[in-house]
Amino acid sequence: MAIHHFDPTVYYTAIGTYPPVLHIADGDTVETTTVDARGRNREGVTVAERGNPQTGPFFITGAEPGDTLAVHFDRLRPNRRTGWSRQVIAPNVIEPELVRNLPPDPDEDLAEWDVDLETWTATLIRPETSLGRLCLPLDPMLGCFGVAPPRGQAISTATASTHGGNMDYRGFREGVTVYLPVAVPGALLFVGDGHALQGDGEIIGTGIEISFDVRFTVHLLKGKTIHWPRAENDVELMTVGNARPLDQALQHATSEMMRWLAEDFALDAREASLLLGQCVRYDIGNVFDPAYTVVCKIAKELLPRRI
Amino acid sequence: MAIHHFDPTVYYTAIGTYPPVLHIADGDTVETTTVDARGRNREGVTVAERGNPQTGPFFITGAEPGDTLAVHFDRLRPNRRTGWSRQVIAPNVIEPELVRNLPPDPDEDLAEWDVDLETWTATLIRPETSLGRLCLPLDPMLGCFGVAPPRGQAISTATASTHGGNMDYRGFREGVTVYLPVAVPGALLFVGDGHALQGDGEIIGTGIEISFDVRFTVHLLKGKTIHWPRAENDVELMTVGNARPLDQALQHATSEMMRWLAEDFALDAREASLLLGQCVRYDIGNVFDPAYTVVCKIAKELLPRRI
Amino acid sequence: MAIHHFDPTVYYTAIGTYPPVLHIADGDTVETTTVDARGRNREGVTVAERGNPQTGPFFITGAEPGDTLAVHFDRLRPNRRTGWSRQVIAPNVIEPELVRNLPPDPDEDLAEWDVDLETWTATLIRPETSLGRLCLPLDPMLGCFGVAPPRGQAISTATASTHGGNMDYRGFREGVTVYLPVAVPGALLFVGDGHALQGDGEIIGTGIEISFDVRFTVHLLKGKTIHWPRAENDVELMTVGNARPLDQALQHATSEMMRWLAEDFALDAREASLLLGQCVRYDIGNVFDPAYTVVCKIAKELLPRRI
Amino acid sequence: MAIHHFDPTVYYTAIGTYPPVLHIADGDTVETTTVDARGRNREGVTVAERGNPQTGPFFITGAEPGDTLAVHFDRLRPNRRTGWSRQVIAPNVIEPELVRNLPPDPDEDLAEWDVDLETWTATLIRPETSLGRLCLPLDPMLGCFGVAPPRGQAISTATASTHGGNMDYRGFREGVTVYLPVAVPGALLFVGDGHALQGDGEIIGTGIEISFDVRFTVHLLKGKTIHWPRAENDVELMTVGNARPLDQALQHATSEMMRWLAEDFALDAREASLLLGQCVRYDIGNVFDPAYTVVCKIAKELLPRRI
Repeated sequence: MAIHHFDPTVYYTAIGTYPPVLHIADGDTVETTTVDARGRNREGVTVAERGNPQTGPFFITGAEPGDTLAVHFDRLRPNRRTGWSRQVIAPNVIEPELVRNLPPDPDEDLAEWDVDLETWTATLIRPETSLGRLCLPLDPMLGCFGVAPPRGQAISTATASTHGGNMDYRGFREGVTVYLPVAVPGALLFVGDGHALQGDGEIIGTGIEISFDVRFTVHLLKGKTIHWPRAENDVELMTVGNARPLDQALQHATSEMMRWLAEDFALDAREASLLLGQCVRYDIGNVFDPAYTVVCKIAKELLPRRI
Repeated sequence: MAIHHFDPTVYYTAIGTYPPVLHIADGDTVETTTVDARGRNREGVTVAERGNPQTGPFFITGAEPGDTLAVHFDRLRPNRRTGWSRQVIAPNVIEPELVRNLPPDPDEDLAEWDVDLETWTATLIRPETSLGRLCLPLDPMLGCFGVAPPRGQAISTATASTHGGNMDYRGFREGVTVYLPVAVPGALLFVGDGHALQGDGEIIGTGIEISFDVRFTVHLLKGKTIHWPRAENDVELMTVGNARPLDQALQHATSEMMRWLAEDFALDAREASLLLGQCVRYDIGNVFDPAYTVVCKIAKELLPRRI
Repeated sequence: MAIHHFDPTVYYTAIGTYPPVLHIADGDTVETTTVDARGRNREGVTVAERGNPQTGPFFITGAEPGDTLAVHFDRLRPNRRTGWSRQVIAPNVIEPELVRNLPPDPDEDLAEWDVDLETWTATLIRPETSLGRLCLPLDPMLGCFGVAPPRGQAISTATASTHGGNMDYRGFREGVTVYLPVAVPGALLFVGDGHALQGDGEIIGTGIEISFDVRFTVHLLKGKTIHWPRAENDVELMTVGNARPLDQALQHATSEMMRWLAEDFALDAREASLLLGQCVRYDIGNVFDPAYTVVCKIAKELLPRRI
Repeated sequence: MAIHHFDPTVYYTAIGTYPPVLHIADGDTVETTTVDARGRNREGVTVAERGNPQTGPFFITGAEPGDTLAVHFDRLRPNRRTGWSRQVIAPNVIEPELVRNLPPDPDEDLAEWDVDLETWTATLIRPETSLGRLCLPLDPMLGCFGVAPPRGQAISTATASTHGGNMDYRGFREGVTVYLPVAVPGALLFVGDGHALQGDGEIIGTGIEISFDVRFTVHLLKGKTIHWPRAENDVELMTVGNARPLDQALQHATSEMMRWLAEDFALDAREASLLLGQCVRYDIGNVFDPAYTVVCKIAKELLPRRI
């Protein structure tokens, strides 16, 4: 149950079987940092190439394909004052004909946000608009994290799949435990892409992007096999599907929830259907990345006792 | 500002230009009833053919194509004790390969729920399952309502489009005002398909289906033109897209919100993007009907003053 | 086996249960005309409102719900010299980001084509472009036809469903027999929207739109029930799915072909799979209309004898 | 312009930056072999793990990111007599409700086909069905080939993207030249997954899978940048999109064709639209793999002179 302090010096823009930066054990905690989506660290210095560069991979001793890695997000906090976002809605989330009239959104013309942990707010600094100094409560989260995928793959941190990746879901915040399917020895965990705040769908292509201090604790579920990422917090279970269209992402998320309810709560397909039919909640993680993300949720208070 | 009490004797399973059952004026209130999705009334007697039979159409004096009809749901309450639902998740919301293993869900083998307005709960009566007498809080809503569509169309109450229809969204509850685009003289409003409760997506193909007492009040917004249904409650604005896949439904809902923010709050595309990007919420109304429903929401407290 | 000459005076822009313009019998032939998609007749005079106005409905004596109507296209020919098309690719068929750079395509700024039945060519007359007088072989077809849908519906001729409608498939040419599911007494057949020529997908939103002389012969298949339109020519069977996304249209078309192979050729699911797996062909009818169209085809020479 | 004979001893089930097996030059020809989709070679011996194991990678001297690699398929021939296929249509290509009734298709219960280069036919040997010894003409093609993707990725040979991959398109046959976007030094070309025959869509999840003799010749187009795979044969240009849903694959393919027509034939968006609108053809490569494949085609005879 060691606590490791780790300062990254290398970052990856794909999640794959790269040399581990640290070996940790079941139950260990890691305190580290992540750079923002364009590779800038807490000082605002560009130290990695753009595209959700990841801290890691962390090798979890004893993890083998077929296991599940539980990662508890103990603390997820922006570690500098300035965040940024894009400014214009993505062409794929509005009616195609309307795209003709979208204003330009040059790649380097970013909105700037002041992120204040004292007041727990993000305030729009520029551009000047009729919104004025729009001030929003923080809700820090990690946009991209995951474990090495199977089959020798290395998957871009622009996208997501069964291994996690760039899910850009605002529910992946402090206090949540995520579950990831181990596909290679050591699991090889990556974390990155902190957002001070993000709406559903990440429809302008970014949250409020910023570097983070991250503390997480891992637990290894030996012999437990899952198909898609799962998560839970104090009040609900969550399952995640990453695919296009949203319909397919929803199919994966729902199927994974059916499996979870069968495995851990002994609910057969009919029982799970009767419950989810009247009580399920869906969140749209992102509708911007190459794979969209849908999250299926059920309140724990509605569930029978875990078996 | 009359209050009309209306007892329906005819029901429609398409929304179109049928003979009005009642003429009402801007500001009037109607108290009426709806039958359940299979045409059973408060006594459980089948009085209409199945498939979301509608009460109406109500002719709103002075409504013309290009106007908007505002309908405030003053009161939406189940008016009998027994509701029903289907029992097994729909094949289109799980991974295709898993459908091979779904249990049968015969059309007439319905789950039965006791709906108690005193305790404000729905309790599963049958089948017998390990869920026991699952007891859930009520959240009454209308699954299907709308106005006659343009072009002489009559559109099945199984589906939804710009005119409303079978949106099966749990947010259409008491206290909400919905806005519908008038396409024919008199608007021709229909209401029906009450659910005592429904999860996101209506993933078993029904909510808890039941007959309703419905009271609503209409207001006519002359010269106000909208493209897709809108709604609001005390805390948020909602826009609705009905289409497949969910991606397209989301495009319509988001585009309609962009239009609303421009028209009533003077936010241009960049301003609306900056706001929605970090603050938008999406709900999935249904992923079961021929057209899926996505709802785009923004909290009113985040908006500038209406113009 | 009468031959009827019918001059239309009324046109419909929805396909529904409207008063028949002519009663015909099983085996009868009809010679009539259709106007172009914007309602212009052979003289170029606008006689109907725009949006694929239909000639009909024709009442087929004895047709009842559950039957199938076979319609043989005996002759489909443009009946004037000037056709028109839109000029710019539809925003929904290119990558969303590229729509920003599409040239304008004003609704009334149409390309003009000279349609010559003698040379069997269509020649681009305007605009002036580097294509010059692009000269293409004719391939006349009907973009929109169908029978009244079930449930009292009247469905816009902009779209398509199980009843046919605006499928915009270039394979619906002279010599083809189409099969449509009868949903109301008399079937109520509509025809319209002739194209002198059209590419796959109707990706600029039109073919070469023109008025037509149409001759067709109907046969009634009593007690034969189909779910989606079917068709055949001398060399292949075709089944049609109309839906979004294309994936779903393909599911319907493929399922209907599986049903056809079972019903008429006694091929079970495995046998049909083994055959279609190596031999099926798909065409994309349209990717422009509210419902997209996919056609599933199998060569007749590969099939066992009809049962 | 050397001819290299290469006997593979290592195979990859992801396409990525692996150690080259051979360095070749612009203009060189390679004669090699590929194993079938489950790793069996010409003797039927399993020499690689299943999942479209690839021969390669071949390092093309001088290839740099931003270039295009042209690969001409000089000869693509099955090199043994026995091919295999799956037996039952994939659940994702039929209506979801119908999946309940699909027969089982155990992973190892494969259909067996006799592949005869003399008669140029594939004959169904087992199972016994009413199809008897179904005999089909050969049409050999490569299901999976590509170059290493950008960003350090290694992408499973189950799927496809901008780099090529598992496109399963029956048009990638002998005599075709394919163009692939170079993303890493040396391009790193992989080839594999030969099919003696395949229908559109690969709807049973396989073609007739078999090991191949492959001869190809490479040419390097320095400084020519493409976004998606392109191809041509004597009569047509082809562009390829790999994505889900089919709608998005079609968007990529169509956009790439618009780019090609602009770059090499000086057709602006309006000119390309006028031409493609009436003349484009689409093929559905696969609707089975994680990314679906749509091919956009235009006949060369319709095009102006290349610039």
